Formats: sequence, structure tokens, C-alpha cells
Amino acid sequence: MAQKHALVTGGAGFIGAHLVRALIARGFRVTVWDNLHTGRKKNLEGLGDAVFFDNIDIRDSKAASLETLKHGKPDVIFNLACPASPPHYQKDPIYTWETSVLGVRNLLFLAESCGAMLLHASTSEIYGDPQVHPQPESYWGNVNPIGVRSCYDEGKRAAETLCADYRRHKNLDVRIFRIFNTYGEFMHPDDGRVISNFCVAALTQKPLPVYGSGQQTRSFCYVSDLVEGILLLAQLPRELYDGPVNLGNPGEFTILELVKLLEKILGRTLAIEYHPLPADDPKMRRPDISRAKSLLGWQPQVMLEEGLRRTLEYFAAELGVSYG
Amino acid sequence: MAQKHALVTGGAGFIGAHLVRALIARGFRVTVWDNLHTGRKKNLEGLGDAVFFDNIDIRDSKAASLETLKHGKPDVIFNLACPASPPHYQKDPIYTWETSVLGVRNLLFLAESCGAMLLHASTSEIYGDPQVHPQPESYWGNVNPIGVRSCYDEGKRAAETLCADYRRHKNLDVRIFRIFNTYGEFMHPDDGRVISNFCVAALTQKPLPVYGSGQQTRSFCYVSDLVEGILLLAQLPRELYDGPVNLGNPGEFTILELVKLLEKILGRTLAIEYHPLPADDPKMRRPDISRAKSLLGWQPQVMLEEGLRRTLEYFAAELGVSYG
Repeated sequence: MAQKHALVTGGAGFIGAHLVRALIARGFRVTVWDNLHTGRKKNLEGLGDAVFFDNIDIRDSKAASLETLKHGKPDVIFNLACPASPPHYQKDPIYTWETSVLGVRNLLFLAESCGAMLLHASTSEIYGDPQVHPQPESYWGNVNPIGVRSCYDEGKRAAETLCADYRRHKNLDVRIFRIFNTYGEFMHPDDGRVISNFCVAALTQKPLPVYGSGQQTRSFCYVSDLVEGILLLAQLPRELYDGPVNLGNPGEFTILELVKLLEKILGRTLAIEYHPLPADDPKMRRPDISRAKSLLGWQPQVMLEEGLRRTLEYFAAELGVSYG
Repeated sequence: MAQKHALVTGGAGFIGAHLVRALIARGFRVTVWDNLHTGRKKNLEGLGDAVFFDNIDIRDSKAASLETLKHGKPDVIFNLACPASPPHYQKDPIYTWETSVLGVRNLLFLAESCGAMLLHASTSEIYGDPQVHPQPESYWGNVNPIGVRSCYDEGKRAAETLCADYRRHKNLDVRIFRIFNTYGEFMHPDDGRVISNFCVAALTQKPLPVYGSGQQTRSFCYVSDLVEGILLLAQLPRELYDGPVNLGNPGEFTILELVKLLEKILGRTLAIEYHPLPADDPKMRRPDISRAKSLLGWQPQVMLEEGLRRTLEYFAAELGVSYG
């Protein structure tokens, strides 16, 4: 059987870099498209000829097309290209919206012309500030259409819509997964979400920034668990796919509990600096993963304490500081 | 003072055709862009040289650009181009999504390059199946991101998002109005919404199609009232605009009350045929128009009975049948 070819957009980003490695480990040829907006070439270091990198902006219909694929048609496309942390996606909201919306359109078109399967990375942010807890895939969400987070939230919702219509009306094999908070190696030190903020602050002897009271909860999925879920979804027999699948860790922690866990790992007390809660910040978000469990036989394996240890080690190396 | 130039996309459609006439009456030069997907050239009959028509698809960034504007830069752009009735917008959902999403992007780009004001037609459908009643502009909505109505609902939400970000980050004068159910002359006989369905059925001696129990409510705004609201919004001093404005008639009628009113006007009993409720059909929707009242001094003037009379006359002429 010929070697399978996967195209990973955003493959030089945090999650992308892990997915690329997992695909190579499973024998795939991998093409990465990334414009290095938040992705970093160094995340793909050491992979050699197993990965073909091309600097492509998926917003550009000419660039993100069959002609640009130097190594032939992909069998499967993973669309992970989009700034995903609030500071990153709010920096240039028009860019974010375009990446999500124009990007998915160009990739759906590409998938159709290649006869490829498209796996589209959506997000728990499509649930907004949820009024149902935890969130099952059937929940429609509570999203501000014109707020500061909307470029990402609504951009991702509109992307899901187009995916669903391509599936219904063009019979394309499109599968959506909704990523909840994920952490681990290859995170951008400026990612701006709580785990990178806390790890970097703790390692550089600065106070940990806590927004609001710190009583709001988050769920944290270690990246290897997430990637395993994505690959299981890609392997699912087509007729069994029946709509978006939440991928996340249902373990729920308050921000202050996260501080305690870091203190335990580091063996010292950490200073906290309180800041006001940003606009439209969700007060809680936790995945209902019943569908992933029953459909994929998937559930997270890595405990938060273990994942945090590995992430702290990565950030320590990244920052060139000693750890532990 | 030089004559003002307005570009109306979707100007050959139902609401567009009224807006074009109102603009001409106020001394504007008007360019209409319409690809006649649901619009009809006959809606612009009798306007002569006061309107320049061009067959432009706003999804096409090359076509919907400054180069195509044969009569110079517009001072104001009204974006009304999008199929708006469920049967029309669900017929080709990918087209609908693209018209809303790619269309608004191309027009925002055009407005920026012309220094024009953009008035963007949004919709009560961004509220989805609302859990707050009536709906103020601050309500975030309850929308299915992957349902059969999503191409329109989410397409329109994502369009609002981009408008809001152009306003915040590019300092463009973009104003959004959210249109609730509107009816009147120039409606497409195949529009598929309740008023055209009922008028056409009644005039052709067929039973009136009622979906569900007929106890669900709708609010109906006569088109001249709506157009007045749009023009008032365009005239609002820029610094007073502070976000989307609902335009609709808060009078609330059940579908069966609408039947009774038509029976009164026509002076005869009308037969009803019941059908199942379509997917994701909103059970009630009614505008909170406090903002339009205080900001624009606007409220609907035409009573439903009077508006229905005029609409029946129009449909009778359109269908070539006698009325009354």
C-alpha cells in the first residue's frame, strides 16, 4: 500500500507540531502549510525529510490550492491553522476572522478537488460563555457576535457551518473536532493563556497573573491526549461520524487550584498578582466527552500534575533557566 | 453640493427595490449591484437613468471592487445582497454562506478604499431561536452552528463580526441594522415566508399552508417603515452610533391571527393545510425597538391590516388575478 500523505495546516504551531510527529510516527508523508504567524519553524526541527514545509497563508485561495502542493494530492487534510489564544487572535482580529473563514473555504475547496478527507479543528470557544455545563456537542453556545473575542468565536462557528454544508451538500468527508484548553511542549511562551503565563512567570520568578477572582474554572488537556483523539477521529469509519466531537479533559480546576498544583511541583510558594477579568471571558468551560468516549473509545490519560511537570521542563529549556 | 452617490447591493431584491426608490426620491444617484439570484430586474422598472444597474456577484472580489464602479466612488454603500427567506437561502447553502461572508468582506474592503459609509443589513435570524423575548440588541442569540439554517444565521453573524472589527480597528463608519420579518410590494411570489405564502394561496384559491400548530408568533414590518428606519440610521451623526439597531415591528401575531386578518380583508373564509414545523424554526421572535426609538426617533407607522391590503393588491397584479 502506498504511503499516505497528510497535509497539516498550522503544522508549525503548538498542536500542529505534535500532530505532525504523530503522523510521521504512523508512517505518513506530511506536508506542512504554515505562514509562521504564530507557528515557529523550530517546532519542526529534527524531522528532516519526513516533512515538507511550505510557507502558505491559507487565506490566499491561489496559494492554498492544488498547484502549490509540490508533493502531490493529500489523502487527508488537518486544518489547524488559526491563532488560538486570546492575545494572539485579538491582536489582528480581521486576520483571525479571515484565517478561520476564508481559510476553511479554501481548504474545503482543496479537499473536494483532491477527494481528500478534511479534519477541521474547531474550538470550545464556539460555546462562548456557556449556560450549560459541561458542554455537550448539541449545545448551541452563548456567543457575543460583535465582541472582542468574536473574530475567533464567530469565525470558528462560521467555519463549522461551511464544513457541515460541504458534508451535507457535496458529500465531502469533513470531520470537526472541538478542542478544549490544551497545553504541553511547543506552546508559545507568549501564548497568553493561563498555563503558559503561569509556567513562564513561575520559572522567571515573577508573580502569577490571575484574572478575576481565580475561582473561574478551566479544563486542561495534555497535548498527547488531544492528538490521540484527533487521530482516532481520522480513523473512524465514515458512516459512523455524526457531527462535531469534543476533545478535551473533563477534569475541572479553578485557576487558584492550578496555582496550588504548580506550588506542589516546584516545592515553593508562588506570588500572585490579581488583574481585572477581560471582556466576555467565559466563567467556566468543561467538555462533555461522552461522544468521544463512545465513538472513539477515547479519554485523556495524562493527569494534570504529570502534564504540568513536562510542560515546566519544556518552558525551562525554552527560557534557558534551571528547573527543579 | 454635489449629488450623493449610493451603491445598493441586492438593489433588485424586495427591500432593495424600495430602498433604491427612496434614495432616488431623496436626490441620490444610485448604483445597483445585483446578480439576480433572488432579485428581479423588473423590480427596478420605470426608474430610468436615475439608477445604474450592474450584474455583480459580491462574492467575487475582482467584480465587487472599485474598478467595476462605472459611475465613480459611492458616498454610502447599503449591503442588502443575500437570499433572505429560508427556502431561498437553504437551496444553495454554500452560495448563501459565501454571499454573506465573502460578500461583506469585499464590501468592507471597498468601503475602506472609497472612504464610504457602509450600512450592513443583518437579520433577526442572528438571534436564532431566542430564549429572551422580545430581543434587544444586547441579546447574544441561540443559534445552531451546524443546522440547515446556519448558512444564513451564522453567515450573518460572522458578517456582523467583521463589520464590528472594521469599525473598531480600521475606524470605518460601518452601521449594522437587524431586519425583522418585513413584507410588502416587490416580494418574490416564491419568497416562501408566511405572508407571501398566504397571499399567493388565498389569491389562487388554495389552502393556506400552516407549519406547526399556527400558535407560533411572528412580527411583521411593512417595508416602507423599514426603509425609513434604514435611512434614518444612515443620517445619524457618526458619534451617536453605538452598535447594531433592530428594525422591525413589535406587534406580535400568531400565524392563525394572520389568517383571521386575511379573512377579514378578503371577506371570506380561508382553508388551512397543516404541515410539520421545519427544523430549527424559531417559536417566537419580536424586536425590542427601544434603541431605534431613542436613537432614530423611529417606529413603524403602517398597521398590519393596511400593509396586508397593499400587499394583496400587489400580489393580485403580479399573479394576474382579480382581488376583492
